[in-house]
Amino acid sequence: MTTSAPAPHGPREIVELTGHVLDTGLFTLVLDDVRALGGDYEVVRFDVGKDAGDTSTVRLAVSAPDARTLDSVVMRLHTHGANLVEVEPARLVPVERDGVFPADFYATTNLPTSVRVGESWVDVENPEMDCGIAVTLDEDGGVRSVRTVPVSDVRAGTSLVCGAAGVRVTLPEARGSEGGFTFMQSEVSSEKPQALVVHQVAEQMRAVKEAGQKVLWVLGPAVVHTGAAPSLAALVRGGWVDVMFGGNAIATHDVEQSMYGTSLGVDLSAGSGVEHGHEHHLRAINAVRGAGSLAAAVEQGVVTSGIMHALVTGGKQFVLVGSVRDDGPLPDVHTDVIEGQRAMRGALADVGFCIVVATMLHGVATGNVLPGHIPLVCVDINPATVTKLADRGSAQARGVVTDVGLFCAALARELTGSET
Amino acid sequence: MTTSAPAPHGPREIVELTGHVLDTGLFTLVLDDVRALGGDYEVVRFDVGKDAGDTSTVRLAVSAPDARTLDSVVMRLHTHGANLVEVEPARLVPVERDGVFPADFYATTNLPTSVRVGESWVDVENPEMDCGIAVTLDEDGGVRSVRTVPVSDVRAGTSLVCGAAGVRVTLPEARGSEGGFTFMQSEVSSEKPQALVVHQVAEQMRAVKEAGQKVLWVLGPAVVHTGAAPSLAALVRGGWVDVMFGGNAIATHDVEQSMYGTSLGVDLSAGSGVEHGHEHHLRAINAVRGAGSLAAAVEQGVVTSGIMHALVTGGKQFVLVGSVRDDGPLPDVHTDVIEGQRAMRGALADVGFCIVVATMLHGVATGNVLPGHIPLVCVDINPATVTKLADRGSAQARGVVTDVGLFCAALARELTGSET
Amino acid sequence: MTTSAPAPHGPREIVELTGHVLDTGLFTLVLDDVRALGGDYEVVRFDVGKDAGDTSTVRLAVSAPDARTLDSVVMRLHTHGANLVEVEPARLVPVERDGVFPADFYATTNLPTSVRVGESWVDVENPEMDCGIAVTLDEDGGVRSVRTVPVSDVRAGTSLVCGAAGVRVTLPEARGSEGGFTFMQSEVSSEKPQALVVHQVAEQMRAVKEAGQKVLWVLGPAVVHTGAAPSLAALVRGGWVDVMFGGNAIATHDVEQSMYGTSLGVDLSAGSGVEHGHEHHLRAINAVRGAGSLAAAVEQGVVTSGIMHALVTGGKQFVLVGSVRDDGPLPDVHTDVIEGQRAMRGALADVGFCIVVATMLHGVATGNVLPGHIPLVCVDINPATVTKLADRGSAQARGVVTDVGLFCAALARELTGSET
Amino acid sequence: MTTSAPAPHGPREIVELTGHVLDTGLFTLVLDDVRALGGDYEVVRFDVGKDAGDTSTVRLAVSAPDARTLDSVVMRLHTHGANLVEVEPARLVPVERDGVFPADFYATTNLPTSVRVGESWVDVENPEMDCGIAVTLDEDGGVRSVRTVPVSDVRAGTSLVCGAAGVRVTLPEARGSEGGFTFMQSEVSSEKPQALVVHQVAEQMRAVKEAGQKVLWVLGPAVVHTGAAPSLAALVRGGWVDVMFGGNAIATHDVEQSMYGTSLGVDLSAGSGVEHGHEHHLRAINAVRGAGSLAAAVEQGVVTSGIMHALVTGGKQFVLVGSVRDDGPLPDVHTDVIEGQRAMRGALADVGFCIVVATMLHGVATGNVLPGHIPLVCVDINPATVTKLADRGSAQARGVVTDVGLFCAALARELTGSET
Repeated sequence: MTTSAPAPHGPREIVELTGHVLDTGLFTLVLDDVRALGGDYEVVRFDVGKDAGDTSTVRLAVSAPDARTLDSVVMRLHTHGANLVEVEPARLVPVERDGVFPADFYATTNLPTSVRVGESWVDVENPEMDCGIAVTLDEDGGVRSVRTVPVSDVRAGTSLVCGAAGVRVTLPEARGSEGGFTFMQSEVSSEKPQALVVHQVAEQMRAVKEAGQKVLWVLGPAVVHTGAAPSLAALVRGGWVDVMFGGNAIATHDVEQSMYGTSLGVDLSAGSGVEHGHEHHLRAINAVRGAGSLAAAVEQGVVTSGIMHALVTGGKQFVLVGSVRDDGPLPDVHTDVIEGQRAMRGALADVGFCIVVATMLHGVATGNVLPGHIPLVCVDINPATVTKLADRGSAQARGVVTDVGLFCAALARELTGSET
Repeated sequence: MTTSAPAPHGPREIVELTGHVLDTGLFTLVLDDVRALGGDYEVVRFDVGKDAGDTSTVRLAVSAPDARTLDSVVMRLHTHGANLVEVEPARLVPVERDGVFPADFYATTNLPTSVRVGESWVDVENPEMDCGIAVTLDEDGGVRSVRTVPVSDVRAGTSLVCGAAGVRVTLPEARGSEGGFTFMQSEVSSEKPQALVVHQVAEQMRAVKEAGQKVLWVLGPAVVHTGAAPSLAALVRGGWVDVMFGGNAIATHDVEQSMYGTSLGVDLSAGSGVEHGHEHHLRAINAVRGAGSLAAAVEQGVVTSGIMHALVTGGKQFVLVGSVRDDGPLPDVHTDVIEGQRAMRGALADVGFCIVVATMLHGVATGNVLPGHIPLVCVDINPATVTKLADRGSAQARGVVTDVGLFCAALARELTGSET
Repeated sequence: MTTSAPAPHGPREIVELTGHVLDTGLFTLVLDDVRALGGDYEVVRFDVGKDAGDTSTVRLAVSAPDARTLDSVVMRLHTHGANLVEVEPARLVPVERDGVFPADFYATTNLPTSVRVGESWVDVENPEMDCGIAVTLDEDGGVRSVRTVPVSDVRAGTSLVCGAAGVRVTLPEARGSEGGFTFMQSEVSSEKPQALVVHQVAEQMRAVKEAGQKVLWVLGPAVVHTGAAPSLAALVRGGWVDVMFGGNAIATHDVEQSMYGTSLGVDLSAGSGVEHGHEHHLRAINAVRGAGSLAAAVEQGVVTSGIMHALVTGGKQFVLVGSVRDDGPLPDVHTDVIEGQRAMRGALADVGFCIVVATMLHGVATGNVLPGHIPLVCVDINPATVTKLADRGSAQARGVVTDVGLFCAALARELTGSET
Repeated sequence: MTTSAPAPHGPREIVELTGHVLDTGLFTLVLDDVRALGGDYEVVRFDVGKDAGDTSTVRLAVSAPDARTLDSVVMRLHTHGANLVEVEPARLVPVERDGVFPADFYATTNLPTSVRVGESWVDVENPEMDCGIAVTLDEDGGVRSVRTVPVSDVRAGTSLVCGAAGVRVTLPEARGSEGGFTFMQSEVSSEKPQALVVHQVAEQMRAVKEAGQKVLWVLGPAVVHTGAAPSLAALVRGGWVDVMFGGNAIATHDVEQSMYGTSLGVDLSAGSGVEHGHEHHLRAINAVRGAGSLAAAVEQGVVTSGIMHALVTGGKQFVLVGSVRDDGPLPDVHTDVIEGQRAMRGALADVGFCIVVATMLHGVATGNVLPGHIPLVCVDINPATVTKLADRGSAQARGVVTDVGLFCAALARELTGSET
């Protein structure tokens, strides 16, 4: 341990952390972060649970050379569920210009968060990481809403929470003790009994649906290349896909396969052919542009099978957001990425489980807007994709390194009985 | 070989291929493609060069079950530089609706292309793959322009080339015989003497600059994470970076490092710390938003070092295009990806060499708009990134699998003498 | 093309290549290799097939600065099935010292090879790459045997073929036109419809068994880690595994799982636990050492399930060869790797198909000793493993990048109907 | 947390853990392991350090359903430096048969270990993981030696430690607080400022040499393929390589490059050529076999440059151990892997730092025999190699994901000033 020199005269706050702080490694993370940001700590109280399963409570006196650093340390500790002991109201500062936060804005985690307004704690309605917190008061001073707001959407005059005082964060119970989902907690690895993983994901989906919640799928184009489109379509028809996020590529390749039997020129039924035939995807895009939308293309019989067809005919919600490498794009694709993020946020209501398959870009984008208590599973043949998603702050992410095609087929077989 | 049954009564065209068709494997690709698309062929003439270095000329009679398939085959052969022998004028069809091509539009390659209008061949001004070809005539029937147009930009009334007749493609001489750059032709591999590769890339850049052309760099955020930002800034100052393409992340992390000495929370000078400190990047974005632009942030002293600082102070051109996972974004970032593509196209004039470092997304996007005769080198530690870029049709792409930080440092040392 | 200067006075030979030389890219490889080794060529005759499916015949005059280089070029062309036109008897040189070849020994390919002895061509009994060719004559000058011999096994006095004259190589018909197995010819990629690949591998195995040949499996330890051991055991019991090659690790982890339900400490039924519990594998090894052998351990009831149990009880052949990282090892493991290679060679009789799962080390070792006409499929989640195997000269290798656990389960389901 | 049901009547032991148990995450690992192996715990005492930098002391009562499980738990806790509080002499059991341990043998960690013999603690002379501990007594009952012994080397009659009682393990101070080497502690990643890593490794080597210790290099063949051989040779000549471990491939490719300028057929000075020319490596092997040894080949002028030449002429120690995929092999290669392990063990005296470059096989093998307090750095372009090495129990391993060629060149430049 690199011991920082004491900072005896610097500002100091007491934070408290309660829960399974020892056996989950949380306490280690907390201490690491205090020092990494230039702070120091002293253990004030330590009530450790006697038995396996008991919770512990730790109080730390956290100090730093200056108030700004201390603020930064305390905000960071929020990501681990450690909160200030002293209760003060949040400091609210009006935004001066559209799209710009006050300099010392409170930067959100994606965890359940409350803000102290006056004498009471008010829950943030829509936890999302890397946002500010806007507090709207009634004319009579009551709280109308406390919501996260991305910097691009903030408007002049909004009251924004600044500093770390008056903000409290709750670590979801699930973190570190997820019962039936424990297997997924271990490290990213391709060396695991994947049949068991399929079963666990299926169980999780069943539980979410039984609880009346929605399942969100985030799909990359390799879903089509690996032959998983029929499995996905079966899952859509079986009711296991409530919302789908993706880009222009997944929808285009899916439509291309429906129209030409190819995906980027690979004939998927025979398996032969190398990757060319690129103009097919452009003709598919052009045909849907001619129809006006994916829904119109389905209605007009231009698209008669595949994932998008199943989503359209099943009345499921989908949000497609473009990227700079897109051809076309399809008429349903948001070409403005900030508009696209808004559309994704608008589709998160009641989502209880999220599965990301074969896409880093849209997976990270989803992780950015998803509340931290919603479990997220990332399936990819490339371990780096899974690791990146977790590194970006989506601590609830669990990774499955496996073959996307075989995984989706096995999942469809387990959930719908379909042999695709 | 899976021999297709003969299609004796189907339509048939004669195509010709001239050049180093044997020793470069081109002929094999041509035959593969004819069959992969459902066509058949007969060798009509085969003049093979006697000595190593001689060119060969091949004529094939290509047939297909129907005219549409034959068109598709002939368009594909264009990607290999094989052209129809018979000279007919191109068929021009007016576009009916904004943003939609006629159904049988000619889909472009990124190779030098000519269109037969009336009695003469007219060069396409701006070769770009996956576009249509718009022909504009003067009032007196003369050709005003022949240009590629992406589907999203096409307007009703435009005359578009349809079918494969009247279109001729030239394979760049460089393909298959690039002289000093031959090493880069071999397969993607990390097992190569990388010092030699650095030297070859440097030589290529010197040659391009001596020819009065521009060097385009496409940068991903790992450039900053791997500590290469000082090397890149030295290359900018040394005049080796004329145009830069990137996304919100590379610019943000570069600015964050300038402001806080961190990149996504990693302290780059000490090297310590794990990847957190995320709010730093949000504060960096917010600060530049407050300034109004990167240029204003440099002017106001908010940003005092790094790649973006070097680009701004050196008056270099940069195009930043956003993606759905972005926070913020920085005010200079195009949030509409189609607008972003237009801005990238607008910055390609006089570019003679393109180097893509540590980004798949913007690398593929650049490959999409870059003419096929401009050499493109892709540097990444992940072999998959390089492979994907080449697979997308950027046949001129050469891959270097290496450490981005050490590579940029070595290149900067060779080109500028700087020890960063 | 980098044209070598002509070498007018150097030695020169005429070689001929017949077959699908154009559409398979073989001709390009041949020309590349001539130049890469410092030779030059002139096309002497070129009879190209008119239709798709016709074979072509090419004659090249190959020259080089000196006889040694020319020998080297001609030996290389053998790997592509190109042979000298002029028929001379092979030059036989007696080996002077055990374990050392004469300096200009003929280095073998793994293709069907004949040697000209006296007036007749005699087939090499056991084609294997990177060996010498030993010719044994009867007392009356007749040929008793023509066999490959590895350098470590050669004995003083043996007559060895030197130089390239009098050696002829036949390219297997299968190369480039494998009928039902065509899909596997395309590039290594994880982006393929894997269900189709499973089906194709199953078909190939059925064909091999129907032809009365054996199926050889080469297994790495990840077979156990990914939960595929029950699938493999089912395949053994179903008669789909005739010979198994592997190392100490696969057998140890399999036995460990049988004895403790763990593999390197991972509880495979619950899926929980990180990778420790290492001493379990040591106790498993110790128990089998105590029994004396795997067969004895099965007989004594120490090992009651798993792959090794199925192999022992089914009377199947297995060859385990150790490596420097081994613990123990198990008593059945060859600790001398050259002895191990001999044991592997001794188990190749009647093998008609080879599948390598999750091991680079033993996969390459098998590729080294396997005749080139026996199809080899390599299954791994890591594309690099597959690529390396093919790069080592096992041109018959086909790669499947997929999840080993799900792949084996799907194959067992298709071949045996078992749901493991 | 999955709380095990209490095991009130099961056996129970008190263990103690002292050190930086909280901020290093050790305590979490300990609790995880107790439960993963089927045990339960109760916190008996917890003295937490007040300030950052203070050590903590924890006492746990560990229980399990049966004595065997409890033994297993206690042995596991040894890997984290947790020891039994109660002091009992070790139980010594005579080995009955050569090469077989008693069933309940104590399985070693690679940490500094002491054994209680009679009334005193005796240090194990040569800590090595996955061994047994042999105690040899004098005729008068004094302790002559306490040494680890691999199962293959144990002889009947040897007194072996059984059970976990009377064994104590010390966690090296360095673990978790390595001062100047802290950067290397963070996760495996290619996204790090590699120039800094080079500097840190160089500093570490300087410190080790100044302390009079040896530097051990473990090299894979990619060292030659990436053009790093001249850098390595410069490092050998500069005195930075005291001992070298490797296989047949690295030595062969190095010799091949010296004799032919190629490595597996790749011309390394021009960089051109694809990977063929395989017979060159066989001729190189044959030539050294003809000379009799690498030293003889150097003396006879057969090998005149490269890594092996530098090692031989500098009188440095090297241990080459073969593998099943080897051609040849070179006469210096141990073909028996167990003999090879013995030779590696014999070369470890005074080694104070180990660097593994581009080899998983020999890296893991070295990790197996290396005491746990010797720092080990693993350099590879493939993150999986580094991860695997750490997973195998070499907890002291630090990973550098980078380009091997550029890394070695940069290290040679820093340490020797050579520009290779």
